[in-house]
Amino acid sequence: MSDERIYTAALVIIGDEILSGRTQDANLAYLAKWLGVQGIRLKEVRVVSDDMDAIADAVNALRVRHDYLFTTGGIGPTHDDITVDAIAAALGREVIVHPDARAILADHYGDQLTDARLRMARTPAGASLIENPRTKAPGIRVENIFIMAGVPMITQGMLAALDGTLEGGAPVLSRTVAAWTQESKVADVLKRTERDNPGVQIGSYPFWREGKTGANFVLRSTSTAQLAEVAEKLMAGLMEIGITPVDGEL
Amino acid sequence: MSDERIYTAALVIIGDEILSGRTQDANLAYLAKWLGVQGIRLKEVRVVSDDMDAIADAVNALRVRHDYLFTTGGIGPTHDDITVDAIAAALGREVIVHPDARAILADHYGDQLTDARLRMARTPAGASLIENPRTKAPGIRVENIFIMAGVPMITQGMLAALDGTLEGGAPVLSRTVAAWTQESKVADVLKRTERDNPGVQIGSYPFWREGKTGANFVLRSTSTAQLAEVAEKLMAGLMEIGITPVDGEL
Repeated sequence: MSDERIYTAALVIIGDEILSGRTQDANLAYLAKWLGVQGIRLKEVRVVSDDMDAIADAVNALRVRHDYLFTTGGIGPTHDDITVDAIAAALGREVIVHPDARAILADHYGDQLTDARLRMARTPAGASLIENPRTKAPGIRVENIFIMAGVPMITQGMLAALDGTLEGGAPVLSRTVAAWTQESKVADVLKRTERDNPGVQIGSYPFWREGKTGANFVLRSTSTAQLAEVAEKLMAGLMEIGITPVDGEL
Repeated sequence: MSDERIYTAALVIIGDEILSGRTQDANLAYLAKWLGVQGIRLKEVRVVSDDMDAIADAVNALRVRHDYLFTTGGIGPTHDDITVDAIAAALGREVIVHPDARAILADHYGDQLTDARLRMARTPAGASLIENPRTKAPGIRVENIFIMAGVPMITQGMLAALDGTLEGGAPVLSRTVAAWTQESKVADVLKRTERDNPGVQIGSYPFWREGKTGANFVLRSTSTAQLAEVAEKLMAGLMEIGITPVDGEL
């Protein structure tokens, strides 16, 4: 499996409201899972402020390193929505009013299509549109960049519209083994199991619950068969040191 | 106020569990608010995988651009906890077993201080410790970098231990005005109000609730008096175009 082409993506989250702590981002986790289903791995994320240079720098750094780059936030009708301008600047493209986007908004708003609303039809030159089934104002695709809304409900609608349209590889699958233990007690078993089974990554995630210490051990691989085999080995290894494993998540 | 020294910070969130969407980050928003109280502005965030180079590159890019750099994740006892090694490599420092950290762990674990647990006493050479009131294994300060846990409860305890110890400037205050309106209807009023009042930023955050459209307009400034003045102006501007403002958040 290791010779397979691996498809990667990055995300730029745009918005002072995230950096001030006012708004809890909900797009990262949703996008990560959606990408996983498409066989694409989210490899890095940046959160930047509503600032032309900050957005352009992040976009230019990440778009060349990954197959796909997503952005969320800053595509509404107000003065703080500068994502389109920043990405156009990053790509050295002009900003135009996209005729199809204008038609969608004209159809939706009728004679209420004000200048502010028309801002939502602006795209970098040469872009195509991503359908927004929820509130009409479209997302934008330009080169390998997907410009999405900040409001999670809208972004999720746009991702649904993209379902199955992006080329990906084998999805990364996961399987969880758990135990009521301090992770420091099982560190050697985890390390050895990962080392002896190339192609499987094992993450250890401790928790404290009802006064007890436990940990979930998440195995990741593109092979269901390998996941099953290594989960068995890990559970056997835990039992060898006197710890009762749980086959699943705690 | 504009001549005041502005203190900035960045955050590197380390962990495949965030990038896979398995775990929802909760440290960004908490740290952002905590920094705000200290008079420090969180300006950028990166999320990177459990990979030495990815961590080191992010740390080296951000530590020179900001007064403070925080990291969360990857400081436990297991094989996937490589933050200390990556940051030491980024700084060109050796990794040592910190004598004070070793003493804290020895006191806590007694004769159960295994090699795996001793991993949690490793720091870059020349570091100092950040108290962990919850689970003992300390956080680490080296140069302007603060190395914190990934588990939110532990990180919050470490931040409490740092309360009031970092030099900051005037805190950024905020005040919210809201209205049941589409933000596209008020875009001109928002833009004009921000343009006419330097020192105040206005963010517009739309929502849909119970079938109705509304938006919160968040004013940010270091001056309470200016916030009050501009909030009045914004509410007057909204009333001029026939929209009833709410003095507060919806």
